Amino acid sequence: MSEFKKQAAEKAVEYITNNMVIGLGHGSTSIYALRKIALLIREGTLQNVRGIPCSRQTEAEARELGIPLTSLDETPIIDITIDGADEIDSRLNMIKGGGGALLREKIVAQASKTCIYIADESKCSEFLGEKWAVPVEVLPFGERSSCAFLESLGAHVTIRRKADGTKFLTDQLNLIADCNFGIIHSPKAIAVAMKSRAGIVEHGLFIGIASEIIIAGKDGIRTLKH
Amino acid sequence: MSEFKKQAAEKAVEYITNNMVIGLGHGSTSIYALRKIALLIREGTLQNVRGIPCSRQTEAEARELGIPLTSLDETPIIDITIDGADEIDSRLNMIKGGGGALLREKIVAQASKTCIYIADESKCSEFLGEKWAVPVEVLPFGERSSCAFLESLGAHVTIRRKADGTKFLTDQLNLIADCNFGIIHSPKAIAVAMKSRAGIVEHGLFIGIASEIIIAGKDGIRTLKH
Repeated sequence: MSEFKKQAAEKAVEYITNNMVIGLGHGSTSIYALRKIALLIREGTLQNVRGIPCSRQTEAEARELGIPLTSLDETPIIDITIDGADEIDSRLNMIKGGGGALLREKIVAQASKTCIYIADESKCSEFLGEKWAVPVEVLPFGERSSCAFLESLGAHVTIRRKADGTKFLTDQLNLIADCNFGIIHSPKAIAVAMKSRAGIVEHGLFIGIASEIIIAGKDGIRTLKH
Repeated sequence: MSEFKKQAAEKAVEYITNNMVIGLGHGSTSIYALRKIALLIREGTLQNVRGIPCSRQTEAEARELGIPLTSLDETPIIDITIDGADEIDSRLNMIKGGGGALLREKIVAQASKTCIYIADESKCSEFLGEKWAVPVEVLPFGERSSCAFLESLGAHVTIRRKADGTKFLTDQLNLIADCNFGIIHSPKAIAVAMKSRAGIVEHGLFIGIASEIIIAGKDGIRTLKH
């Protein structure tokens, strides 16, 4: 599996050219892209690129690898973002946020001219929700009201906790409500309904965001495009 | 003007009965409602009511006035919310957030069975945007991207600052972007567009939320209802 993640990530890195601003994704697939970008910079193959990390963890990893960083406030338009995905359907819809960084991941994606997502083939489904709950970033103020609302949309809701039993907090110090909707036939409708509610800061349904998805598996690499 | 605010607020307080959970609004009109509620409690006219404040400031005011408080986590369903509004059109759409508390105000409103808004007549417009910019709560991460997006929707955007020149921060430590759209003919369309963007946490367009609006002016008190 990790070999496939690496293959997809390294394929995506081929899209990066000199002088680009790169959105750097969060998670176990994106880390392969970071390592490859760092290698190309060290070799001198990639010049004058700068990264914008999607999470504090990615920021730390990128710094350690020696990737020059900038911020969205210095450079509000990103050339290309490379990020992982948790579940993918054939219409390029995705569930993201398994790592809890969905809000910054979506901010970075929406500031990007091109968004390439990378995954191993185990992430593909016919419909979203077959394998993964939708992570939803929820404000602590009104947590119970927000969860009751998410349940009214048909979700089984679990507030994410850390191994020690305390509530997981995002980089913005919000909560993650993992929302199991079962199979999702209309992701757009659920996305719009969730966003109608104050207190739901953002959700992990990424619809109409991916420019291209690179999937690696035992039969090689394939790409999904609109 | 303050006499009209007081009249509207005291009229709204008549809707409160014993044993209710009350959403307590933020701002210069809501404070009159708070004072009246506190008086009725002290007199013994209102019994066993508890308030849920929309802001830290309202919380402090309610405590000082001796209004018993609860939280949305203890009582996720509110019987009635009484709150002010900055601009009101004849279709019960409103702009709120002049005081910077729009996010919690909307969370409290959406958790309420009934929402009564109160204003003096100077707040009424034919169309929203005639008198007031739309306050938008924006995450500091990606501030410039968010502002550029808001400008792409037609707004002139100003990040709110305090008297000392530093950026105003909300109770969630986010920024307020005051968005002057000019006259807003389609508030719903602008609201949906704003919510499509991660990084825009919430906006001050309150559409389909008011149960009733009480407006006091030189010709007396009138109410808007659907």
